[in-house]
Amino acid sequence: MIAGLLVVSLLAQTVDLKAGMSTWVGAHQREVVNELLEALAIPNVAADKPGIRRNADHLKAMLARHGFAAEMLETTGNPLVYGALNVPGAARTVLFYCHYDGQPVDRAKWNQPDPFTPVVRGDGADARIYARSASDDKAPIVALMAAVDALKAQGLTPSSNIRVILDGEEEASSPSLVPAIARYKDKLRADLMVILDGPGHSSGRPTVVYGARGIATVDLTVFGPKSGVHSGNYGNWMPNPAMRLATLLASMKDDEGRVRIEGYYDTVTPPTADERAMLDAVPDDSATMLAAFGVAAPEKAFPKLQDAMQMPTLNIRGLASSFVGPGARTIVPDRATAALDIRLVKETTGPDLVAKLRGHIVQQGYHVVDTDPDDATRAKYGKLARLSVVGPIIEAFRTPAANPHARALVASIARTFGQPPVQLRTLGGTVPIAPFIEALGFPALLVPTVNFDNNQHEENENLRVGTFLDSIVTIAAVLRM
Amino acid sequence: MIAGLLVVSLLAQTVDLKAGMSTWVGAHQREVVNELLEALAIPNVAADKPGIRRNADHLKAMLARHGFAAEMLETTGNPLVYGALNVPGAARTVLFYCHYDGQPVDRAKWNQPDPFTPVVRGDGADARIYARSASDDKAPIVALMAAVDALKAQGLTPSSNIRVILDGEEEASSPSLVPAIARYKDKLRADLMVILDGPGHSSGRPTVVYGARGIATVDLTVFGPKSGVHSGNYGNWMPNPAMRLATLLASMKDDEGRVRIEGYYDTVTPPTADERAMLDAVPDDSATMLAAFGVAAPEKAFPKLQDAMQMPTLNIRGLASSFVGPGARTIVPDRATAALDIRLVKETTGPDLVAKLRGHIVQQGYHVVDTDPDDATRAKYGKLARLSVVGPIIEAFRTPAANPHARALVASIARTFGQPPVQLRTLGGTVPIAPFIEALGFPALLVPTVNFDNNQHEENENLRVGTFLDSIVTIAAVLRM
Repeated sequence: MIAGLLVVSLLAQTVDLKAGMSTWVGAHQREVVNELLEALAIPNVAADKPGIRRNADHLKAMLARHGFAAEMLETTGNPLVYGALNVPGAARTVLFYCHYDGQPVDRAKWNQPDPFTPVVRGDGADARIYARSASDDKAPIVALMAAVDALKAQGLTPSSNIRVILDGEEEASSPSLVPAIARYKDKLRADLMVILDGPGHSSGRPTVVYGARGIATVDLTVFGPKSGVHSGNYGNWMPNPAMRLATLLASMKDDEGRVRIEGYYDTVTPPTADERAMLDAVPDDSATMLAAFGVAAPEKAFPKLQDAMQMPTLNIRGLASSFVGPGARTIVPDRATAALDIRLVKETTGPDLVAKLRGHIVQQGYHVVDTDPDDATRAKYGKLARLSVVGPIIEAFRTPAANPHARALVASIARTFGQPPVQLRTLGGTVPIAPFIEALGFPALLVPTVNFDNNQHEENENLRVGTFLDSIVTIAAVLRM
Repeated sequence: MIAGLLVVSLLAQTVDLKAGMSTWVGAHQREVVNELLEALAIPNVAADKPGIRRNADHLKAMLARHGFAAEMLETTGNPLVYGALNVPGAARTVLFYCHYDGQPVDRAKWNQPDPFTPVVRGDGADARIYARSASDDKAPIVALMAAVDALKAQGLTPSSNIRVILDGEEEASSPSLVPAIARYKDKLRADLMVILDGPGHSSGRPTVVYGARGIATVDLTVFGPKSGVHSGNYGNWMPNPAMRLATLLASMKDDEGRVRIEGYYDTVTPPTADERAMLDAVPDDSATMLAAFGVAAPEKAFPKLQDAMQMPTLNIRGLASSFVGPGARTIVPDRATAALDIRLVKETTGPDLVAKLRGHIVQQGYHVVDTDPDDATRAKYGKLARLSVVGPIIEAFRTPAANPHARALVASIARTFGQPPVQLRTLGGTVPIAPFIEALGFPALLVPTVNFDNNQHEENENLRVGTFLDSIVTIAAVLRM
């Protein structure tokens, strides 16, 4: 029970940092919010090169203003904004990662004329700032600057050397990040990466995340006749690819939601005792979530959300065969396709699970092809399926909870707030910078700080001001870890 | 082996009619083809009321010209054209059914400027007439008139009183046909209906069909969360409706294509010995069909096409859940739908098979609803599915092969051609006039006479001239049955 232990042993040291930070934040909230509003006024869609350059210039100046040695790291794509702040006698070097690009906007869907002219609605801590990237991901950049200022004002120094890297292509899958490592190896060297991105736990408590699942997406098509045939003239005689696909998919999972493909879970190791305690301590509110989603019960195999996240998935994200609804025709369709995604955990790899999926399909009597079959192939094989990997595979990453830097970070937050953060062994989703983490070769944690209901990626993206101001305290605790 | 018996006992009488008819057809083919070309030049889409009226007037005059007492039977929709020809000492009354409306046309797709300006390509028997309704279904009307003329020219009379009804709404599902029975009961009274419509067997031999399967179409939707949820954040925990639909569908059939729903086949009676012999005598060419469709083998449960037609089907005509392809998103979808069609045979009814399907879904643990579930229903039931019947159910019809009128008709064709016709116990498809047959209450047969490759309902519909001229002989044999 590491969480419990931390609370007991560190409670005495709790009060100081939180009180000092709260005082500073109370006195400076107007200027911090204004700094964020200024940053939000610069359009930042990754494809808008002049807008991106203005953001990068603005942020480089911001880093410098807050005491960082700031520079622009040019890449094959959008520039990385980089800052360094060395601390004499630092225990380690921490690389903070944020991104300054945002999702494209559909202006007509927003409740304000321009997503890049921020609008504030509501009062006090519950006020919200509406703008593209308010939460994802400009708020953490400004909060980090405020945390640095606040420590300095209290005569405190960070316990680590600080590196900051601001990515300008995260929403476009960060294609320039891994290639940039070779060029900027020394600048990017650190003991721990802290990713300030994403929503915190719905309980509103500080949140630390040790990893994220990866993803492989595959399309599976079962073939029938070359073109659809009349379901009356040939029904019962002509094999139906939609029924065959259904049978094939059904063979992959049991009724409780467990994957039945041979060896699919074999490499997955169970959580350690400490990790088990951590998972059990996550205050997920299943009943509220189920009611919100309109579902009576979760999968029987994984009744607890955090347990579900520890295992790889096999998810049908789409199905298609001919038409349903008014356009439906009474035919035996020519093919049926399932779009699948496989969420990967640290102990699994995309190619291995895809190979096991392929093996299972072969075991069900299928000849598996990579492209649409020709006449000779059609004549030879009674059951024909195509399996193709769609887009890049992103592997999972996960830092052991026992990692000393991770323990120090969690302990510092626990000290500051009087209780440990919500600790997630892994996000269920995937972060596109996982290959960057892998290539850098040192551990990484996520410290997501914005409100969970921020409408990320959608219209009316927003940031709850109280949550934003709280995040400055959390980040200060990370700086003092 | 009724077919064999007929050949032996009636071979002696074979020659006369065929020879006489061939002579007459040879001498009159130009005027018969011209009569068809004239009829094809009148646009006949069911919704084109002035065009339909011109067709009806033209056909009424044609019937009168060929000796029928012709009249227009007005209905709530398009008029029926009616003709009667009584024969002293007739053995029975036969009602011939054809339709004079045609499928809508997409002019741009035709290889000629206007589908209603017929074009003839090729020479001799292999020449083809390209026009809308060339095959479906104006050719049989003109062939029937020619057969009547040819008999008269040979000093022969039909063996039955003849009634002719020409439908102007068949391609629009003949909505006015059943209501017309009450108004025109006496005119429509007969001992046998002979439907002259559809393509003959691909062997080119005269074809007699005893029935047609019916159809019920249903949509089956399995519900997941109210809207799609992130497949990373909730994958493994949130039940996936596409996987559940796949499992549900897979439970409905075994791997060989046999329906596993309890009692689905229970009411189906096997063919009689004579019918069995008839089915086995159908010269289907499986190998050629499979090669054309690009399929290695038929369903194992029904390796012979004619056997497959004798059983009800459960066919997936469409599948949909969220998106596949470039628009696919990594979500657990909110719902998954299968569009199904059930082909009915004479011993099954649509409501009964739909009820058995529904019972099976309940047996798999589903609560079955008729509309989208509300929050209370969602909270109560772990497995939710909606089942809805789409459109009208059309029941099957089938006349027993032992029916004396059917035997007389088949015997007459066998006599005329020196071998029995191809006899199909049932079409696999559905004829929209099945409710009309049921409502009239006397047996019906189909005698389809046009070439099987006529591109019916599509662009470049065509009629092979040799097949058309042969059909005059077949119809003469029916008149002389």
